[in-house]
Amino acid sequence: MMKTFDEITQHISTEIDQLNWNKEPRELYEPIDYVLSMGGKRIRPALTLMASNLYQDDVQSAINTALGIEVFHNFTLLHDDIMDRADVRRGRPTVHKKWNDNTAILSGDVMQIAAYQLIAKTPAHCLKQVLDLFSQTAAEICEGQQYDVVFENCDIVKADEYLEMIRLKTAVLLGCALKCGALIGGAGEEDAQNLYDFGINIGLAFQLKDDLLDVYGDEATFGKKIGGDILCNKKTYLLIHALKLAIGDTKEELKKWLNISKDEFSEEKVSSVTNIYNQLGVRTICEDKMLEFYTKAVANLDKVRVSDTKKQELRNLAVKLMSRND
Amino acid sequence: MMKTFDEITQHISTEIDQLNWNKEPRELYEPIDYVLSMGGKRIRPALTLMASNLYQDDVQSAINTALGIEVFHNFTLLHDDIMDRADVRRGRPTVHKKWNDNTAILSGDVMQIAAYQLIAKTPAHCLKQVLDLFSQTAAEICEGQQYDVVFENCDIVKADEYLEMIRLKTAVLLGCALKCGALIGGAGEEDAQNLYDFGINIGLAFQLKDDLLDVYGDEATFGKKIGGDILCNKKTYLLIHALKLAIGDTKEELKKWLNISKDEFSEEKVSSVTNIYNQLGVRTICEDKMLEFYTKAVANLDKVRVSDTKKQELRNLAVKLMSRND
Repeated sequence: MMKTFDEITQHISTEIDQLNWNKEPRELYEPIDYVLSMGGKRIRPALTLMASNLYQDDVQSAINTALGIEVFHNFTLLHDDIMDRADVRRGRPTVHKKWNDNTAILSGDVMQIAAYQLIAKTPAHCLKQVLDLFSQTAAEICEGQQYDVVFENCDIVKADEYLEMIRLKTAVLLGCALKCGALIGGAGEEDAQNLYDFGINIGLAFQLKDDLLDVYGDEATFGKKIGGDILCNKKTYLLIHALKLAIGDTKEELKKWLNISKDEFSEEKVSSVTNIYNQLGVRTICEDKMLEFYTKAVANLDKVRVSDTKKQELRNLAVKLMSRND
Repeated sequence: MMKTFDEITQHISTEIDQLNWNKEPRELYEPIDYVLSMGGKRIRPALTLMASNLYQDDVQSAINTALGIEVFHNFTLLHDDIMDRADVRRGRPTVHKKWNDNTAILSGDVMQIAAYQLIAKTPAHCLKQVLDLFSQTAAEICEGQQYDVVFENCDIVKADEYLEMIRLKTAVLLGCALKCGALIGGAGEEDAQNLYDFGINIGLAFQLKDDLLDVYGDEATFGKKIGGDILCNKKTYLLIHALKLAIGDTKEELKKWLNISKDEFSEEKVSSVTNIYNQLGVRTICEDKMLEFYTKAVANLDKVRVSDTKKQELRNLAVKLMSRND
């Protein structure tokens, strides 16, 4: 009997609560506990367990690897928040705000080590392969974050460059999570690779959905203010295409809004830029691209050589991630 | 034929030069190249190769592990320099000065991953054991750094607390380097543990030597200004004991100097505090403690079950580290 996504995330929450951060010095370990207890969707560790569940009934042999991936993901959020000077994450103060920059740097460092300690508990038959994939993925995520920072200060970012950035920053960890689970479960190389590709394409679609939600989401369910990306001129897939397509007066108006500083005319800026997006049809361009990746993802999953019944839960999750409102 | 320390460090330098950091994005990988090309004594990777050389003629099977340890060591320097707001390292601007804080954080993160990628190339027969020891050591080093930061803001630090801090921050990586080399070479558990303990005790003696050199070193050979620790009120083994032993007027004078801000009366502060150290005899206390650890280290090495001839080079290195002037 296959486990549902909800059963799996429930199990992951219990396991995360049982990780022991009650160590000295407290200043080092308390922030880790704080970050991990904030919650989150736990999608990455769920993907690891679900992929392993395609090949084995008992997913417990994959739990430490799954937890390592989740701890690593939360480490990247911790360090990214320092770099982005973000004050709030999931409705609570970020670590560098609640403590300070030095604590956030050092707790992050030890969190990355803790992730590796969990990864090291991967079953011996695939430890080396999982370890190498994890390290490669971890480095790629840093590369993605660096491109993200670099793009902030670029006048023009091409759509392909943006897609490569989000592949590195977001998609590879989903691919890695799935492939690790598959390898632990005993999948062959071809299945493991198809699940990796499924993760990449779902990840790309997931990030484009994020770009869309920031502009077209429902504030009540989205959990953060609509238009955050617009206010800080974030070069999302929408803005990149708007800058490419706009001409004449529309181009001038868009540029005018981009030159207005962050705290001025917020409401007007969000509504005006959204209007420009609508005029230029970039919402559709983004939705089409998202669907293209989603379709590729489904094709990757189709190629995995296990029964459709077993794959149904991953298929459901893909649908859920595309239709989410938060 | 045993390799000498100089042959081994020469070999390590060549191997470090061959590591490929010519990857994109450049902003991420350039600082790693910069940090590793600054040089350094390469003591930690040398210990790995020398320990492996006790059990095998060809040390090449230990090279990646040795390099991983050196890359990790340099990563800690990179992140420590951000936290300490240090502008100069080995006579050159630190990464966060030459680039910026964000680059230093993110390059450090990817450097830690690169260290793990090298550690993952440890021969399969002891990969898991080396990986676990490395992670435990890495976490301990972060703990040591955190205690170091905490102690900066404590009025009183006990001598034992200080020794525990330097054990974590400095000594465990020497122990780890030696034990990894021993395990790769095929040493038994007892030898591996004795070499680990040799590293711990040499590491503690090494750090006490550092405290002494900062006050009693020869500026020309020490490579940095004498009295740096005194000027920033660093709670070294010398100051901790001086604060404990001073009474009456001497105590008042010492406290007066500790209250003087960093940039005032520099020369007077260094000479006056040094005078107080001399009056109180804390130099001897520190030298005695250093010799105590050195003696323990030699006893640990004596217990290692290989011929004295083979151990001679490690013995020479221990002497060299104790009598060094830089």
